[in-house]
Amino acid sequence: MRSQFRHVALFGKYHTTTQGGALESSRRALDDVAQFLTRQGCDVVLDRETALHTGLNQYPMLDMNAIGTQCDLGLVIGGDGTMLGIGRQMACYNLPLMGINQGRLGFITDIPLQSYQDFLQPMLQGHYQTEDRSLLQADVLRDQRSVFSALAMNDVVVNRGGTSGMVELRVEVDGRFVSNQRADGLIIATPTGSTAYSLSVGGPLMHPAIGGWVMAPIAPHTLSNRPIVLPESSEISIEIVAGRYVSANFDMQSLADLTLGDRIVVNRSEHTVRFLHPEGWNYFDTLRKKMHWNGGD
Amino acid sequence: MRSQFRHVALFGKYHTTTQGGALESSRRALDDVAQFLTRQGCDVVLDRETALHTGLNQYPMLDMNAIGTQCDLGLVIGGDGTMLGIGRQMACYNLPLMGINQGRLGFITDIPLQSYQDFLQPMLQGHYQTEDRSLLQADVLRDQRSVFSALAMNDVVVNRGGTSGMVELRVEVDGRFVSNQRADGLIIATPTGSTAYSLSVGGPLMHPAIGGWVMAPIAPHTLSNRPIVLPESSEISIEIVAGRYVSANFDMQSLADLTLGDRIVVNRSEHTVRFLHPEGWNYFDTLRKKMHWNGGD
Amino acid sequence: MRSQFRHVALFGKYHTTTQGGALESSRRALDDVAQFLTRQGCDVVLDRETALHTGLNQYPMLDMNAIGTQCDLGLVIGGDGTMLGIGRQMACYNLPLMGINQGRLGFITDIPLQSYQDFLQPMLQGHYQTEDRSLLQADVLRDQRSVFSALAMNDVVVNRGGTSGMVELRVEVDGRFVSNQRADGLIIATPTGSTAYSLSVGGPLMHPAIGGWVMAPIAPHTLSNRPIVLPESSEISIEIVAGRYVSANFDMQSLADLTLGDRIVVNRSEHTVRFLHPEGWNYFDTLRKKMHWNGGD
Amino acid sequence: MRSQFRHVALFGKYHTTTQGGALESSRRALDDVAQFLTRQGCDVVLDRETALHTGLNQYPMLDMNAIGTQCDLGLVIGGDGTMLGIGRQMACYNLPLMGINQGRLGFITDIPLQSYQDFLQPMLQGHYQTEDRSLLQADVLRDQRSVFSALAMNDVVVNRGGTSGMVELRVEVDGRFVSNQRADGLIIATPTGSTAYSLSVGGPLMHPAIGGWVMAPIAPHTLSNRPIVLPESSEISIEIVAGRYVSANFDMQSLADLTLGDRIVVNRSEHTVRFLHPEGWNYFDTLRKKMHWNGGD
Repeated sequence: MRSQFRHVALFGKYHTTTQGGALESSRRALDDVAQFLTRQGCDVVLDRETALHTGLNQYPMLDMNAIGTQCDLGLVIGGDGTMLGIGRQMACYNLPLMGINQGRLGFITDIPLQSYQDFLQPMLQGHYQTEDRSLLQADVLRDQRSVFSALAMNDVVVNRGGTSGMVELRVEVDGRFVSNQRADGLIIATPTGSTAYSLSVGGPLMHPAIGGWVMAPIAPHTLSNRPIVLPESSEISIEIVAGRYVSANFDMQSLADLTLGDRIVVNRSEHTVRFLHPEGWNYFDTLRKKMHWNGGD
Repeated sequence: MRSQFRHVALFGKYHTTTQGGALESSRRALDDVAQFLTRQGCDVVLDRETALHTGLNQYPMLDMNAIGTQCDLGLVIGGDGTMLGIGRQMACYNLPLMGINQGRLGFITDIPLQSYQDFLQPMLQGHYQTEDRSLLQADVLRDQRSVFSALAMNDVVVNRGGTSGMVELRVEVDGRFVSNQRADGLIIATPTGSTAYSLSVGGPLMHPAIGGWVMAPIAPHTLSNRPIVLPESSEISIEIVAGRYVSANFDMQSLADLTLGDRIVVNRSEHTVRFLHPEGWNYFDTLRKKMHWNGGD
Repeated sequence: MRSQFRHVALFGKYHTTTQGGALESSRRALDDVAQFLTRQGCDVVLDRETALHTGLNQYPMLDMNAIGTQCDLGLVIGGDGTMLGIGRQMACYNLPLMGINQGRLGFITDIPLQSYQDFLQPMLQGHYQTEDRSLLQADVLRDQRSVFSALAMNDVVVNRGGTSGMVELRVEVDGRFVSNQRADGLIIATPTGSTAYSLSVGGPLMHPAIGGWVMAPIAPHTLSNRPIVLPESSEISIEIVAGRYVSANFDMQSLADLTLGDRIVVNRSEHTVRFLHPEGWNYFDTLRKKMHWNGGD
Repeated sequence: MRSQFRHVALFGKYHTTTQGGALESSRRALDDVAQFLTRQGCDVVLDRETALHTGLNQYPMLDMNAIGTQCDLGLVIGGDGTMLGIGRQMACYNLPLMGINQGRLGFITDIPLQSYQDFLQPMLQGHYQTEDRSLLQADVLRDQRSVFSALAMNDVVVNRGGTSGMVELRVEVDGRFVSNQRADGLIIATPTGSTAYSLSVGGPLMHPAIGGWVMAPIAPHTLSNRPIVLPESSEISIEIVAGRYVSANFDMQSLADLTLGDRIVVNRSEHTVRFLHPEGWNYFDTLRKKMHWNGGD
C-alpha cells in the first residue's frame, strides 16, 4: 500500500559547527530515511539548509517557502529543538510534521531512529494520531509602533541583563492591570513550553489541550508573585518600567537592549502546528518517561 | 426603577457555635439587606437554616430545594467559604448568586457590607457582570460501585491520615496511566480552588476562564512530581494503592477510612455556578489585592 | 591482622510481617557476615529482636541495653530506615555504627552487600572515616509537665489529622515569638532528615556538618512562611493553638490527639550518633547519586 | 553620661543621581544626627563621599581608610543596601556599625529616624546588643591566577548573559566534585543574603548564627538541584564549563564576560562585620515584620 503523503520534505539537525562524525551520521540517517520514503512511493525533497550543511545532494532541495506550499508532510530527524524550530517556520503553511529522534526520546520527536521503519510504515498509510499545538505571536512596540515580530512555540521571555539588577515589568491582560513584577524576568509559555524553561522556575506542567498560557516570573522579589495560567484568548502586554539591558527572547531569537517604555504584546497566533504521532501514542506516557516519574519506562 | 430580580433568597453566615455579638450583628446585617431589597421591589425569603440560626423570623423562610426552584437570585452575606457552600448546593438550580462580605474582600464575595446599597442598586437593575465557575463531580468507587458522590467548587483532596506515612495513589486520566504518586496526598483543584489549598503546595493560579483543573501533589516523594494542568474534559481516576487511614475530602465534606483499591473518579460537573459581580469588576483587581502584589490596593 | 573492634553486634532488617524468601535471605546475609566477622577475630553477638525474628540462633544474642554497654561496634544490614532506628536507640551508648545495604545505596548505609568483605576488612582494621550526626530531643508538655519524650534522627513533625483543616501553631525560639503558622503542619529536621520529608515540602538540603535544623512548614497558608535554618543550640517550642486531631511524630513514633495548649519542645540531644564510612567516602558522592544529579553515577 | 564611643563616623545614603529634595532631606538628617552626637560628647566626622555628595561641610571629613583606623563607631543613615556597602568596606577594620533607616524598617537598619534619639542615647552608653555577620571572600581564577577579588555580605552570583541560554557550572566543595549545574546561574548566599536574591529562587531563610552558606541554583534544568546549606568552613569552587557572556556578581560589583575554564572560588572571609542593635532587639521580630508573617504588625 502506498503512502497517503505524496510530497515529503526531510529536515535534519545541523549546526554551522557540526562536522566530522556527527555530520556523517546525520547524512547517513537522512539518506536512509529518504530511500525508505521513496520505496513507500513518496517524492522526497530535502530542506535546502539541511542539504547544504550535510552535503547530501542526491535529492531535490527546496527552500522553506517552497516546502510549505508544495509538500504535504514534513519529516524532521533531530531533537525537540530542531522540531520546534521547523514547526515555528512551517506554522503558516499548515504542514503536518513527524519527528524522528536520533538520541533519547523527545516530548514531540517520538519515533526512535533505530526502528523508524516500523513506525513510519503504518503512519504513512494514515494510521497516526494528530495533535495540534498553539503558538504565541509576539510584537515589540516602541512608541506605539511594532519594531519586531516573532512566533514562539515554547515561550516568550523578557529578562534582565547578565550584570543588571531586577527588571520591573508592568503586566496587563486584555487592557486590565495585573501587577508590576520586579524579578529577573517573566516567562509566557505555551503548553509545549511548560516542560522547558517555565518548569525550572516553578511553573506547572500543562496538558497540550489546555487553551492557555502560563505566565511565570523568574526569581520574583515578591513571594506571592506565583505562576498564573491565563486563557489563550488573552492579550498579554508587558511594559518595561525599570531595568537595564533588558531583552526579549522568542524561543531562540533574542532582541536585546530594550528601552524603558517598550511593550511586548503577546497573543495567540492564528496558526497552529500539527504533529503526527504513532497510533497508541499518548501524552502521559511521554511525560512520565521524560520526567522520570516512578512508573516511568 | 424596580429590581429585575423578583424573588430573592438571603443566605447568612452561621455556625452552630456562633452566638452572642456575632450572631446579633449577622442578624442585623441580614435584616438591613432584606429591608433594602423589599424597598427595591423584591420578594425576600430567608434560607431556612439561616433563619433558624439567627432567629430572624420576619421573613418567609424556605429550604434549599424550594429556593432553588422558586427564586431567581441568591444573595449571600458572609465570606468566600459561605458563598462556595451555597454555590455548591445551588449549582443544580442555576440560581445566580451575589456576595456581600462582612469583613475583608473575598475572591468572590466582592460587595462590601458598609456600602452594599451603592453596589446592589445598579446590580439589581441589570448592571452586573456574570462569571460562571465550573465544579468538580466526584465519585468514590468501591468494587466498581459508587459509594459516595459529591460536588466541589474548590477541590477534591485525597490524603494520608495524621499519623500515617505516605499514601501511594495511582492516577489515570481518561483511562491512561499517568503516574503512581507517593506523597502526603493529591489535590484536584478548580480555577476557583487554585487560590486555596492548591496554592499552598505550589500549584499555579488559574484564571476562572481556563477550562481546566490543576492536579497538585502534597509533599511528593519524587521531586519531579509537579503540579499539572489538565483539561476539564478529563476524567481523572485516583486509586488508593498503599496507605492507611486515607481520606477523600470534597471542599468541606470528608470521607474517611478509604480502603486499598478504592477509586476516586473526578469529572466536570454538568452544572456551573453563576456569580454576579458589580460592573467594572475584574478578576485581576481582586487577585492583586488578595495576593498583596506590589500594585495592590 | 585482627580487627580493632572486638565485640561486634549485628542488626538485621525485619518486620513482624517479613516472612518466606525475604526472611530467608536476611538470615543468610546475617549468617554470612557473622562468619566473616568471626574470621576477622571478632566476638559476634546478635541483636535479640533480629535473632528472634530471623531464627538465626547460632550466635549469642543480647538486648539493646547489653549491646550498648558491652559492644564496641554495631553493624546494621538493611536500609537507611533500619540504620536510623538503631542509631536512635544506640545514641546514648556512643556505639559506632556501620551500614550494609541489601538493595540500593543509602545515604548512610553505604557498604554494598555483594562486596561487603572488600569494604569491611580495611574498616575493621581502622581504615574508616567517622561522621557524627546530631539528634533532636523532643518533649511534649501538657500543663507544664512532660507527658512524652523522644529522640529523632530525621525529624519532629507536628501535623493536622487526615480529615481536619489547617492547624495553627505558635512557634517560639529560645523564648522569642517567631510566628503563628497556619499550615498542614510543621517539620523540624536534622541535616540527616533534610533529604527526607522536609525536602518534599521545599526544605533545603543540609550538609551534616551544619550545626542547625531546618524548620519547614507543610502547605503553609501564608506564602512567605518559608523554610528557615535555625542554630542547633536553639530551643524550639511549638504550641498547638488551633486544629483537631493534631499529632506529633518523631521519626517513626507518633503521639496522636494532642490538645490545644500542648507544646512540643525541641532541643539538641546531648547524644550524637557516630557512623563509620569506608575510606574515601564523601557526602557529595552519595548525595549526587541519590539525587540523580547530572554528574551522578 | 557620656558616650562610650568617642570617635564616630557618619555615613549617608547618596547616589550620584540623588538631588533636590532627597539630597536636602538627607543632609538635614545627617546634620541633625551629627549635632545630637556632639551633644552626647562624641567627636563626629563625616565620610568623605557623603560630605561631598550632600554638601554638608561643617564637620571634619575622612576617607574610608582613615575612618576605619581612627573611629570606634560607624553610624549609617540609609537603608540595608547602604549599610551592607559600608559594612563590606569596614570589615577589615572591625568598626562596629549602627543603622538608622530613613524609610521603612530594614533587616539590619533598625533604628527609625523619627525617634533615633530615644534609641541612640542608651546605645551610646553601652546598652546595645552585638551581632557579628560573616562575609564571603571570592576570587576569580584564570589559568590558576587570581584576576579579581571581592568581599560579599549578601551573595556571590554567577549567571548567564541576558540573551544567552543556560550556563553549565562545575561545583566542587573542598576539592570534592558536587555536581554540574545547568541553570540560569548559581547563588552562594550568607545568612544575611538569605533574605535577598536567594530567597526569590527558593532558598531557605538562615538565622545569622548559622555557620553556613546556602548554595541555590537559579532556574535549574534538573528539578532535583535544590538549594543546599554548606558549612562556612567550605571552600566552594565554581568553574564555568559552558555558557556565553557569563558574569560573576559580588553584592553590587560585577565582573562580566568570564571565559570557559574560569573558576570562582568562595571562602569565608577572615573578617566579620559587627552590627549594634538596640537592647531588646531580636532577629525574629524583624523577620516577622519584614516577611509580613501573620503575627507581624
